[in-house]
Amino acid sequence: MLGLMQDWPLTCDKIIDHAARQFADREIVSRSVEGPIVRTTYGAIHERARKVAQKLLADGMANGDRIGTLAWNTSRHLEVWYGAMGMGGVYHTLNPRLFPDQIAWIVNHAEDRALFVDLTFVPIVEKIADQLKTVKKIVVLTDSDHMPDSAIDLICYEDWIAEADGDFAWVDIDENAAAGMCYTSGTTGDPKGVLYSHRSNVIHAMMAAMPDAMALSSNSVILPVVPMFHANAWGIGQAGPMTGAKLVMPGAKMDGESIYELLDTEKVTFSAAVPTVWLMLLQYLDETGKKLPHLTNVVIGGSACPPSMIEKFRDLYDVDVIHAWGMTEMSPLGSLGPLKPKFRGLSPDEQLAIKQKQGFAPFGVEMKITGDDNEEKPWDGKTFGRLKVRGPAVAKGYYGGAGAEQFDDDGWFDTGDVAHIDPDGYMQITDRSKDVIKSGGEWISTIDLENLAVAHPAVAEAAVIGVSHPKWDERPLLVIVRKSGQSVERDDILSFMEGKIAKWWMPNDVVFVDEIPHTATGKIQKMTLRDQFSDYSFSDRDEA
Amino acid sequence: MLGLMQDWPLTCDKIIDHAARQFADREIVSRSVEGPIVRTTYGAIHERARKVAQKLLADGMANGDRIGTLAWNTSRHLEVWYGAMGMGGVYHTLNPRLFPDQIAWIVNHAEDRALFVDLTFVPIVEKIADQLKTVKKIVVLTDSDHMPDSAIDLICYEDWIAEADGDFAWVDIDENAAAGMCYTSGTTGDPKGVLYSHRSNVIHAMMAAMPDAMALSSNSVILPVVPMFHANAWGIGQAGPMTGAKLVMPGAKMDGESIYELLDTEKVTFSAAVPTVWLMLLQYLDETGKKLPHLTNVVIGGSACPPSMIEKFRDLYDVDVIHAWGMTEMSPLGSLGPLKPKFRGLSPDEQLAIKQKQGFAPFGVEMKITGDDNEEKPWDGKTFGRLKVRGPAVAKGYYGGAGAEQFDDDGWFDTGDVAHIDPDGYMQITDRSKDVIKSGGEWISTIDLENLAVAHPAVAEAAVIGVSHPKWDERPLLVIVRKSGQSVERDDILSFMEGKIAKWWMPNDVVFVDEIPHTATGKIQKMTLRDQFSDYSFSDRDEA
Ligand SMILES: Nc1ncnc2c1ncn2[C@@H]1O[C@H](COP(=O)(O)O)[C@@H](O)[C@H]1O
Repeated sequence: MLGLMQDWPLTCDKIIDHAARQFADREIVSRSVEGPIVRTTYGAIHERARKVAQKLLADGMANGDRIGTLAWNTSRHLEVWYGAMGMGGVYHTLNPRLFPDQIAWIVNHAEDRALFVDLTFVPIVEKIADQLKTVKKIVVLTDSDHMPDSAIDLICYEDWIAEADGDFAWVDIDENAAAGMCYTSGTTGDPKGVLYSHRSNVIHAMMAAMPDAMALSSNSVILPVVPMFHANAWGIGQAGPMTGAKLVMPGAKMDGESIYELLDTEKVTFSAAVPTVWLMLLQYLDETGKKLPHLTNVVIGGSACPPSMIEKFRDLYDVDVIHAWGMTEMSPLGSLGPLKPKFRGLSPDEQLAIKQKQGFAPFGVEMKITGDDNEEKPWDGKTFGRLKVRGPAVAKGYYGGAGAEQFDDDGWFDTGDVAHIDPDGYMQITDRSKDVIKSGGEWISTIDLENLAVAHPAVAEAAVIGVSHPKWDERPLLVIVRKSGQSVERDDILSFMEGKIAKWWMPNDVVFVDEIPHTATGKIQKMTLRDQFSDYSFSDRDEA
Repeated sequence: MLGLMQDWPLTCDKIIDHAARQFADREIVSRSVEGPIVRTTYGAIHERARKVAQKLLADGMANGDRIGTLAWNTSRHLEVWYGAMGMGGVYHTLNPRLFPDQIAWIVNHAEDRALFVDLTFVPIVEKIADQLKTVKKIVVLTDSDHMPDSAIDLICYEDWIAEADGDFAWVDIDENAAAGMCYTSGTTGDPKGVLYSHRSNVIHAMMAAMPDAMALSSNSVILPVVPMFHANAWGIGQAGPMTGAKLVMPGAKMDGESIYELLDTEKVTFSAAVPTVWLMLLQYLDETGKKLPHLTNVVIGGSACPPSMIEKFRDLYDVDVIHAWGMTEMSPLGSLGPLKPKFRGLSPDEQLAIKQKQGFAPFGVEMKITGDDNEEKPWDGKTFGRLKVRGPAVAKGYYGGAGAEQFDDDGWFDTGDVAHIDPDGYMQITDRSKDVIKSGGEWISTIDLENLAVAHPAVAEAAVIGVSHPKWDERPLLVIVRKSGQSVERDDILSFMEGKIAKWWMPNDVVFVDEIPHTATGKIQKMTLRDQFSDYSFSDRDEA
């Protein structure tokens, strides 16, 4: 028997309609790419988004078309999202930090029909213009005064939008229709496209706004430092207008001083960013002695948040840090780490030990950890396994069918992360599954070993890789960069580690290098490192 | 083009699974019908709900079957809900405050196949047992020690559930399948059944938990005084386990002292109830001088919340009241009245004027007000019209097709309420549409007139009805009960009202009676009153 409740499709046009109806005068403040700080409202964004939709259709775009954006977080970028979705299209955020050739590859793979580009990124587009096979229009997100001279055909956004009269109603859309797209670039293979639906965006926004997640309301003032081109700005592009929160958009400037200026003048209460951004801010505050009287919560994720950062925010600035984990494939929220009530009475240090974990799954995310034969591992806070997830805002495949091996028949998505989960549900990432070392059938976390090694005062950086071993399959090799002027040796390191980890986790060898290879976003390139040590063999030194 | 996100049906089994996985040891405390306060956890409820589902199937119940409950808010009632839903059935809450014959009519109309009944209500069931045509089992929610002697066949819940081993997996369910049922009894005609779906329950629970609604999290301690048989306890039966909130269930006792005891000993942070319950509590606090140190927020709705109640909670107990409006047909949340940020700087009195309105629609509720020809009225805070709503948790019809005239082709449900909405989206109920007076094509709010009349010191109660008028179609007749010993007359009342309302709103006459008729729930029975004055005629006294 079916229920008798209304068929009210969960589509994103309803989000911006709600914002315009209930929070028409609530502000969206942007640091514009042209320089000055500019202000608009949900009412105005709603109106301009309708014009974008109307103009896209008038320009020949059609239902399902991908509309690429190469843009910072600004109100114009947000308008383009809702305009693209509202005409039945798909906003497709491109990461400007990729190499131009990669961007061209992605635009062609997604078959983007238009590009909306910030002034900053016009040079990228000029460089790749003749490679682009499907793009019909390139619109620069600025006004006529700021239009650059260019050898390629560029359209001025403000002139373009002015041609629409705004007399437009959103196209009827299936809630399962594609709404947004974002490519994720693994360390191997081609980038893979995640295709968000209207439904997943709406449900994810509700998950993101809940009190144990980002706790967003009409009284929130949100600074999403995390870019809209990085997994929907963690859902804030939807959750902001859904809740009527004021948005403060940082544009192109993410340095400590610029972020501080916005936090302070706009009285921001909540922000979200990766640890690097917060490092810059904390350093700026340290140097200037400035404080954060308005900010109450921040969500930190994207890579592991150091406990010292949580501590500093708490002790010096009275800001509660929520450590979160997620992935482009998860829209992106996967887990968040507020304290459950049973931990409220613990000492600050005990609380810190919990808060440094990546948190627990909200309603809408199912999690499990599994071993080599897909058998489920216990939630004991020690045993680790491959982290698999399921949920209404989790991908069931990549655009074009790539990466099918990451999805199993029961709908579980293999995140590629390795984690343990404690009896209270708090998950902690211990490794990437391609990095974890399999020694005699048991797993060793390279991240744990690295964290321990860098605690040695003479170590600047450490990386652990698995190297094949005749008896144990794989054993850990510890690669170290010494701090300049330090002369620490293999045995110093090993005896420093001894007793702090299980005996069978001890690296079989330590080697010293001048430099460890990194990706553009600062992560250690373990693949390159493994290549570098592909000839290394334990057998002559070690019989463990 | 479809999105590529997982098909993860929004079903209620996922709510209790999530609670058991993430908040297994979080408590549900109930004042049991047997007397003592008893404690259980989400982990235990999850296990027992599986047994309920398993036993229902073993007893021959099938997918889609309605499972009636005549029960207070207790953990057992909650188990039965999740058990019924988890086997593909439909929990059907019956309102024990109705006349036994009405209950029998509803059970037969819904074709309930089983009844789960609190000890309190065994006499009702005994009275109607031989009228019930579809009920196969009557289970009393108690243990064998407390089983009553009865002439009818009664099953002991604890014995019954003990027969299941709990080795059971939830039945696969379509998110649009019926999950719950609740009849609403209008003042005219037969009761009408609202059929909630799994999807509507899940979405509504997320709406209810949002920061601008009930703001529920794992740190909340919720006392739902509002009964589970009254529109899902306003969604708390789902939103509680979804967020991991502790639940404090009041059982059969809703008097001031009993409620206070639970608020105090269980450190309740949030509660929800109708104004009558709060009146009793406030009176108890007043008499005893007790305080509410733990409680921070309450949601008040079901009927209009007097401003003095909001004020008292704020000034004497530091509790923030959110006035809310809703209906059984809306799951039930329709609007909630937290202050939007622009009002945060106002004086306490100015804030009160906003907070006494019924609030604004959350994401997931669309609202409009319309006139006689279904034309939309402006949101100016003055013009009122029929209040119509749309949303994923709003009914699209009643069970069996009754009341079809309340639903239009564009999916709008006519609430039967009359309201105005201000430019900031705050809605205020001014009447029921069957009570509103239509004078010369314009509408007059009977509630406004009544509120004004009772402000006169000699008036105990007032009711306004429309009486047909040769020239103006209808004109207001004011019916008054004098305070004992008072001798106020027609002209005193009219001159008291003069200048405080528009001239054409002035009642054409005032009559005095000893008593005004009321429904079982304390609302004025305007229909009876209109019958009573059906022979009344203005023409001889008034030529307005
Ligand atoms: N806060 C409120 N103020 C005035 N009337 C209300 C309020 N909440 C609910 N109601 C009335 O109660 C009706 C719903 O009754 P029920 O379906 O029994 O919950 C609504 O249509 C309103 O007439």
